[in-house]
Amino acid sequence: MYEILDTINSPADVKALNSDQLVQLAAEIRAFLIESVSKTGGHLASNLGVVELTLALHRVFNLPEDKLVFDVGHQSYIHKIITGRKNRFDTLRREGGLAGFPKTAESEYDCFNTGHSSTSVSAALGIARARDLAKETHHVIALIGDGALTGGLAYEALCDAGRESGNLIVVLNDNQMSISDNVGGMSEYLSKIRTQPSYLHAKSKTEQILSKNAVGKGVAAALRATKNAIKKVLLPANIFDELGFTYLGPVDGHNLEKTEMMLRRAKQTPGPVLVHICTVKGKGYAPAENAPQYFHGVSKFDSADGEACTKQKKQDYSAVFGESLSRLVQEDKRVVAISPAMTLGSGLGAFAAQYPDRFFDVGIAEAHAVTSAAGLAISGKVPVVSVYSSFLQRAYDQIIHDVAMQNLHVVFAIDRAGVVGADGETHQGVFDIAFMRHTPNMTVLAPCNFEDMDAMLRYAVQAVDGPVALRYPRGNVQAKLPCVFRAGVTDCVREGDAATVVAVGTLAHEAILAAEQAAQQGIQADVLVLRQVWPLETEVILKSVRKTKRLLVVEDGVRAGGIGEAIGSILAAQGVQAEFVHRGYDAFVTQAEVSSVYRRFGMDAKGIAEWICEGKS
Amino acid sequence: MYEILDTINSPADVKALNSDQLVQLAAEIRAFLIESVSKTGGHLASNLGVVELTLALHRVFNLPEDKLVFDVGHQSYIHKIITGRKNRFDTLRREGGLAGFPKTAESEYDCFNTGHSSTSVSAALGIARARDLAKETHHVIALIGDGALTGGLAYEALCDAGRESGNLIVVLNDNQMSISDNVGGMSEYLSKIRTQPSYLHAKSKTEQILSKNAVGKGVAAALRATKNAIKKVLLPANIFDELGFTYLGPVDGHNLEKTEMMLRRAKQTPGPVLVHICTVKGKGYAPAENAPQYFHGVSKFDSADGEACTKQKKQDYSAVFGESLSRLVQEDKRVVAISPAMTLGSGLGAFAAQYPDRFFDVGIAEAHAVTSAAGLAISGKVPVVSVYSSFLQRAYDQIIHDVAMQNLHVVFAIDRAGVVGADGETHQGVFDIAFMRHTPNMTVLAPCNFEDMDAMLRYAVQAVDGPVALRYPRGNVQAKLPCVFRAGVTDCVREGDAATVVAVGTLAHEAILAAEQAAQQGIQADVLVLRQVWPLETEVILKSVRKTKRLLVVEDGVRAGGIGEAIGSILAAQGVQAEFVHRGYDAFVTQAEVSSVYRRFGMDAKGIAEWICEGKS
Repeated sequence: MYEILDTINSPADVKALNSDQLVQLAAEIRAFLIESVSKTGGHLASNLGVVELTLALHRVFNLPEDKLVFDVGHQSYIHKIITGRKNRFDTLRREGGLAGFPKTAESEYDCFNTGHSSTSVSAALGIARARDLAKETHHVIALIGDGALTGGLAYEALCDAGRESGNLIVVLNDNQMSISDNVGGMSEYLSKIRTQPSYLHAKSKTEQILSKNAVGKGVAAALRATKNAIKKVLLPANIFDELGFTYLGPVDGHNLEKTEMMLRRAKQTPGPVLVHICTVKGKGYAPAENAPQYFHGVSKFDSADGEACTKQKKQDYSAVFGESLSRLVQEDKRVVAISPAMTLGSGLGAFAAQYPDRFFDVGIAEAHAVTSAAGLAISGKVPVVSVYSSFLQRAYDQIIHDVAMQNLHVVFAIDRAGVVGADGETHQGVFDIAFMRHTPNMTVLAPCNFEDMDAMLRYAVQAVDGPVALRYPRGNVQAKLPCVFRAGVTDCVREGDAATVVAVGTLAHEAILAAEQAAQQGIQADVLVLRQVWPLETEVILKSVRKTKRLLVVEDGVRAGGIGEAIGSILAAQGVQAEFVHRGYDAFVTQAEVSSVYRRFGMDAKGIAEWICEGKS
Repeated sequence: MYEILDTINSPADVKALNSDQLVQLAAEIRAFLIESVSKTGGHLASNLGVVELTLALHRVFNLPEDKLVFDVGHQSYIHKIITGRKNRFDTLRREGGLAGFPKTAESEYDCFNTGHSSTSVSAALGIARARDLAKETHHVIALIGDGALTGGLAYEALCDAGRESGNLIVVLNDNQMSISDNVGGMSEYLSKIRTQPSYLHAKSKTEQILSKNAVGKGVAAALRATKNAIKKVLLPANIFDELGFTYLGPVDGHNLEKTEMMLRRAKQTPGPVLVHICTVKGKGYAPAENAPQYFHGVSKFDSADGEACTKQKKQDYSAVFGESLSRLVQEDKRVVAISPAMTLGSGLGAFAAQYPDRFFDVGIAEAHAVTSAAGLAISGKVPVVSVYSSFLQRAYDQIIHDVAMQNLHVVFAIDRAGVVGADGETHQGVFDIAFMRHTPNMTVLAPCNFEDMDAMLRYAVQAVDGPVALRYPRGNVQAKLPCVFRAGVTDCVREGDAATVVAVGTLAHEAILAAEQAAQQGIQADVLVLRQVWPLETEVILKSVRKTKRLLVVEDGVRAGGIGEAIGSILAAQGVQAEFVHRGYDAFVTQAEVSSVYRRFGMDAKGIAEWICEGKS
C-alpha cells in the first residue's frame, strides 16, 4: 500500500532514510492519517501539522532512551505510527484499542501519559531532574503547542526550568491555534517573533554590523551606559530568553532539513533550550488547512472532501446551551459568557459572533476563566463559564476560593459531564458532582433533556443567587419526563412498590427504560430523577424508600463523594432500613462507548432492570 | 498617641496632607503596625514594605469608586488602617474581629476577597470588563507581589489582559520575596530589570542619542532591516511590554513622591499598564528587614527586638515532618522534596540546607509542584510534595490527571489540614479528605501524634506503591494512643458498649477525652481512630456499631463528600441499624481559635461527651 511507510517499524528505520525518501514518507504518513482517521474519527489537523517535526525529533533523538513528553498528546499519532503501532490504527480510540493519547502501558516509546493541556514542561522538568540526580545524560524533550502555552502550568514550569543548569529541551510547536484561533498576549507575542528572521541569524548579523562600524560601537557604548549589556539590548526582546532559556528559531517546521538542524543545535546546547517551530495545522489536506478548527477532533468523514466535519452537527446539549444562552442575553443584559478556548465545542460559536463584547475566550486558562468570572460577578454581571467537566478540575480552587466563598453568582455550564467515550480516562467528566457538591453555597443541576437544559439555564441565570452548576453530557441522550423542571424538587417520574431507582440527569433515560422492562415482568418500581443534584431534596426519596425498602442510586460519576453516598448516609442518619446499592465509578474509566461503560457498571437499562427484578426473589 | 495617624479616618484625610506630614504619617503607621501586630500576631513584614505604596495608591486613586484588588491580601493592613478600621486592630484575626485579609463584608473599600495567591489580575480584569460593558470609567488596580507573579493564574490573566484595549492597572510590588526568597526565571528577570534605570527615562535617552547621531540612525536602519522597528529593538527587552502592557518603572516604592508620580502616569495611560514598584519587605523595622522570612506571619512578640519570631518554635507537625524526612533520605536515596514557596513553614528548612540537590522550591506554583513530582516519580524517585491543604486545592487536576491516573508514587505531605485558626476561611484545610479520597488510587493517612507522623511518612515513602497523602494539622495537638500505626487498620483505642465514636486523625484527642468524661458518668464508649482514612477499613467500625447501635463520626473537614458520608453510606449498604451522626463543616468556617470551632460544631471533648451521654436517656 505505502511504499516506504510499510517498511517503517521503528525509529531506526526512519533514521536510515535519505532526504527524498523522507519527503515521500511524510506524504505517505499524511495519506495514511487521512484515510485512517476518516474511518475511525480522531484528532486530525494537529497531527497533519507535525509530520515533519515528529520525523525530525525521532531522527535527532534516540527514543526510548531520550524522553519525549507530549503536551495534550492528541498530536502523537505520527509518533505512534513510527514506533510500531501503525497496524493498530483501525482500533484507534475504541474500547481495548489504541489510545488517542500517549500511554506508557502501550509502548516504551511513550514516557508520560497526557490528555490535558500545559503539563509537558513540568513533567519533563521532573524527568530531567531525576536524570541529573542519577547522573544520567539522556535528553528530555517537551513538545508543546502555542495553545498549551497560554496555560499557567506551562508558565510555572518555564519559570522553574529557566533557572536550572540541567539540560531540558522545550520544542514549541507554533501553529497559531488552540482548537480555534489562539488568543492572548502570548499568542500575539509569538505572532510577532514568528515573522522575524531566525534569532541565531539576527544575532550574528547584529554583531557583524557593530563590529564593522566604529560609530555603531559608540552608540552601543552609549546605550550600555543606561542599560545592561550591548548584546541584550540590541537583540530582539525575547521572553523565553529572559526566563533563562536559550531561544532557537523560529524555523519552518515543514522543512525537515532545517527542523533537524535546529533540533541538533538544541541537543548540543547546555541548559534549558526552547526551539520555536512554526507549523500549519492541517498541513497537506486542503479541507483541514482551510478550516482547522473543524478538523481538530473529528468523527468519521469522507476523506475526499471532509464535508461531514464542516457541516452542521446533530443537535446536542452543547448546541442547545448555546442557543438558549443567546436567547437569554437578549432579555438579560447582565449575561456574559466565558470560554477557555472551547468556543465551538461548547456551542458558543453563534453567541461569540453575535455578542463579541460580552464573550471572552480567555485561552486555555480554566483557572483564569473562573477568577475573572468572579470579578465580573462581583460587579453585577452574570458570567456563564462554559467548560468541559474534566478541564474544570483545573479551576477547583478558584471555584472554592474566588467564587463560592464570596457566594458570587457565577453559572458553570459543565459540558462533557459523565463518561465521554473515545477520549478515555483523561477526558471523563466523572468528578464534577463530587467536587462541586462539597463546595459550600453551590447548587448543582443536571438536565435530563433539552427542555430541562433550557429551563435550568434560565433558572440558573435569573433565579439563583450564588454559584450554580449545570452538568450535561456529550451528545444528545434525552429522557422523556412527565413533568417540567422545578427547582429544589426531586421528581418521581414513574411509580411502583417493588423498588426505588434514583437516577442523576440523563441516566433517567436508562432508569425509565429499566422500569418499563421490569414492568413487563409485572414488577413496578419508583423512578426518581435528580435534576437538582445538590442541595439534595430528600423527602421524596425517603418516602419512596420507606415504601419500597429497596434503593438503587445510579450516577455517571465517582462513587466516593458522589451523590449516592450522600443519599446512603441520609438513610443511615434517618434510620431508614432498606436494601441500598450505589452504582458509579471507583477507578479511572478507560476509553469505550458510553453505552459499553454503562453496561459494564450496571447503569444501563438492562443492568438496572435486573436489579429491580432481583428484589422479587 | 499618634499625632497625624489619629486624625486619619478616611482616604480623604490622607489626600489632604503635605509631603512632610506624609513622611510622618508613614513613620507613625509603621510604629502602629509593629506595636499592634506584636500584640495580636499577624502579617508584619509585607505590610511594613507597602506603607508608602498604599498611601500613594489612596492619594492617586479615589476609592471606593476606583477598585483596588489585593493579591493574597495579607498586605492590606495599611489600607485597612486608613479606611476607618484602625481602632479595630486589637481584634485582628480574632473570632468576630478584623480579618487579616480584605473582606467586602468589612468595608466598602474592600472590593474583592482574597487569601490565596495570584488571583488579583484575573479578578481585576473581570471587574474592568464589567466596567467597560457598563460604560463606566473608574480605575481598576491589581496590587500583586513578585512572589504571586510566579503563579500560573497571574500569567494567564496577564496574557488575557494584555490584548485588551480597556484600562487596567497592575501594580507590581517587587520585594524580591515570596514568604522566603523568591525563585525562578521570572524572579531572576525582575532582578535584572530592577537594576535598570527607569524605563521611561531609558527610552527618552536612547531616542535622544539616536536622533542626534547620524551614524546612529544608520545603525538603526541596518537593524531595522532584520528586526521589527527601531524602538522595540533598542529598548530593553521587557516581558510585560511584550504581553501587551505598557510598562512603567522601576521606581523606589519608599519614595512617596516618585511612586505617586508613576501611579499618576499609569492613571493617564490608556489600556493595560504595569507599574513596577520596588519595596523592601520589613522596611523600617530592623529585625524584619534583616530576616523578613521570619516576620511574614508572626505570633505575638516583643516589639523591642522581635526575638520571639526568629527563635526556634515549639515542636509541631511541620517540624516533625522535616526531621523525619531528613532521616528517611539518608537511608533512601529515591527521596526528593518539593515545596511551592513554603520551605520554612513546612519544616523543610534543614532538609533544604542539607540536601540542596534533592530539594526543589518551585515558587508559588502548586500545580507545577505536583506535575513535576509526577515526572520525578515516573523516573523512579519518590517525591514528597509538601504543601498546605488549602493551597493543594490549586493542584487538584494535577493530582488526578498527572499523578493518580498513572498511579505514580508521589507522597503528599498536607500541612495545615483541618481548621487553622486566625487566617480564616481562605486558609482552612477542610476539603482535602473529600477531594483526595474521591481520587482513584489514592491512600489518605492522618497522624494522631508525632510518632504516627514519623511512622506514616516512612510507610508512605517505603511501602506504598502509588499516590499517598498524609494530612496533619497546624500546631502540635497529639492523641495518646495505646497502639502504633498499622497500615489499613482502623484502630479501636478505647472500648465501651454505649456508643461508637469514630475520629479522624488528631480529633482522636478530643474523642478520647470525651470517652473519659463519659466514663466518669458510667457510660463507656468505643473510640475508633481513622489513621488510615482511605481506603476505609470498615470491619472494626461495623463490628462496633452492631454492638453499640450508635455512631458519631467527627472529622475536621467538610461533611459533603467527607469520610463520615462514606461510613454512613456503608451502614446503609450493610443494613446496619443504628443511630448515626456525622459532624463536620457545611459552610466556610470563618476565623476563630481551633478550639472554638470544634466547640461550635460539637467536635470538642465536651460536645462529643454530651452526645455519648445522650444515648443513656
